[in-house]
Amino acid sequence: MRVEIWSDITCPWCYVGKARFEKALAAFPYRDQVQVVHRSFELDPGRAKDDVQPVILMLTRKYGMSEAQAEAGEDNLGAQAAAEGLPYRTRGRDHGSTFDMHRLLHFARERGRQVELLDLLYKANFAEERSVFDDDERLVQLAGAAGLDTDAVREVLADPQAYADAVRADEREAAQFGANGVPFFVLDRKYGVSGAQPAEVFTRALTRAWDERPPLALVDGDAEACGPDGCAVPQK
Amino acid sequence: MRVEIWSDITCPWCYVGKARFEKALAAFPYRDQVQVVHRSFELDPGRAKDDVQPVILMLTRKYGMSEAQAEAGEDNLGAQAAAEGLPYRTRGRDHGSTFDMHRLLHFARERGRQVELLDLLYKANFAEERSVFDDDERLVQLAGAAGLDTDAVREVLADPQAYADAVRADEREAAQFGANGVPFFVLDRKYGVSGAQPAEVFTRALTRAWDERPPLALVDGDAEACGPDGCAVPQK
Repeated sequence: MRVEIWSDITCPWCYVGKARFEKALAAFPYRDQVQVVHRSFELDPGRAKDDVQPVILMLTRKYGMSEAQAEAGEDNLGAQAAAEGLPYRTRGRDHGSTFDMHRLLHFARERGRQVELLDLLYKANFAEERSVFDDDERLVQLAGAAGLDTDAVREVLADPQAYADAVRADEREAAQFGANGVPFFVLDRKYGVSGAQPAEVFTRALTRAWDERPPLALVDGDAEACGPDGCAVPQK
Repeated sequence: MRVEIWSDITCPWCYVGKARFEKALAAFPYRDQVQVVHRSFELDPGRAKDDVQPVILMLTRKYGMSEAQAEAGEDNLGAQAAAEGLPYRTRGRDHGSTFDMHRLLHFARERGRQVELLDLLYKANFAEERSVFDDDERLVQLAGAAGLDTDAVREVLADPQAYADAVRADEREAAQFGANGVPFFVLDRKYGVSGAQPAEVFTRALTRAWDERPPLALVDGDAEACGPDGCAVPQK
């Protein structure tokens, strides 16, 4: 079974929702047969790479919040994160473009290191002082810690076209699925879970998708095929 | 929409079925939004790399056919291939292990060259004189023609563990889907098409899977999420 998770590194509910999903997955009896794939979704796709702002300032400018409202929002998100055991700096974080991080996550998927890199990017963004934005060497360091070859990572970062299509294809697909926000979970392309639902909802979704998994609905029975006993034309 | 096709390079019905599927896909109005993924399925998984036999001899030994029966079977397959415009050598072909080819196909998928490599492997196996078995340089040549870096291809071939897990994971998944033979097509993990069905069946399956695609069934409505308008807790 495949679970695809659309999310953004700068999305606090994605960070929290991932932990809730993982709690459900850890208790799911068939967890070894569940493949999790990260999909790209930029919350702020138009932002230039060098346009980095403090989160609180961005919230007041982009959404017209007062500073007190923005800080209260961050405090609430910090409490939600803490409830999942996640570190979260409610003050002093930056906001910026995540396009390069998504490109790297696609590269990491090819190398079997996507899970590791995503965890490190979330932790760096939400819990560590050094900004992850407009700082290629920071991304190289994190990707290296995720087990990726740092020279190859530098090559990906230096070529803005590398994996750019993969990021955009994910974003188009999210739109086709009707996802307006993230996190957005898709189980075997059949069930969707929108938002940072409680772990019980993920458990229900995993169970439902699993139970309905086999058998596939076969369109038109069998036809000519090859198997362990040779290549044959079945008698219909 | 995603179509996964389990097949083996030595499987004549896979070669024919792929052409029939592609005929349907070429006429499918939403073909640009269909992603095709090759999945591994070895018809003869126990065969050692250096155990290469003429196809006709393999058919007589493995399935107890007479030589005349084996030749008649190949003639029939050749006629089916010809009907799809595919070249097919009915005499003089070899049979052997395809494990390394499947490993390379996974590597090629990472590099965006899977379609190209699969086409060349089929053509080489079914239509060209030089054997594709137990001949790494032949595979390097074909992979290079598919646009892959030949040094990297040699590294994959030299390391028997490279992409081996990916091949086996595909094979486990085929078993979970109930596929006993190939080709086996899975559309969005919802509909299956077994065997080299006529193009009309693929058209029907594509249409049905497409029509039922959006919307996903959402499990439990919306929850906390971040979108273009910020991060919010929806009112249920």
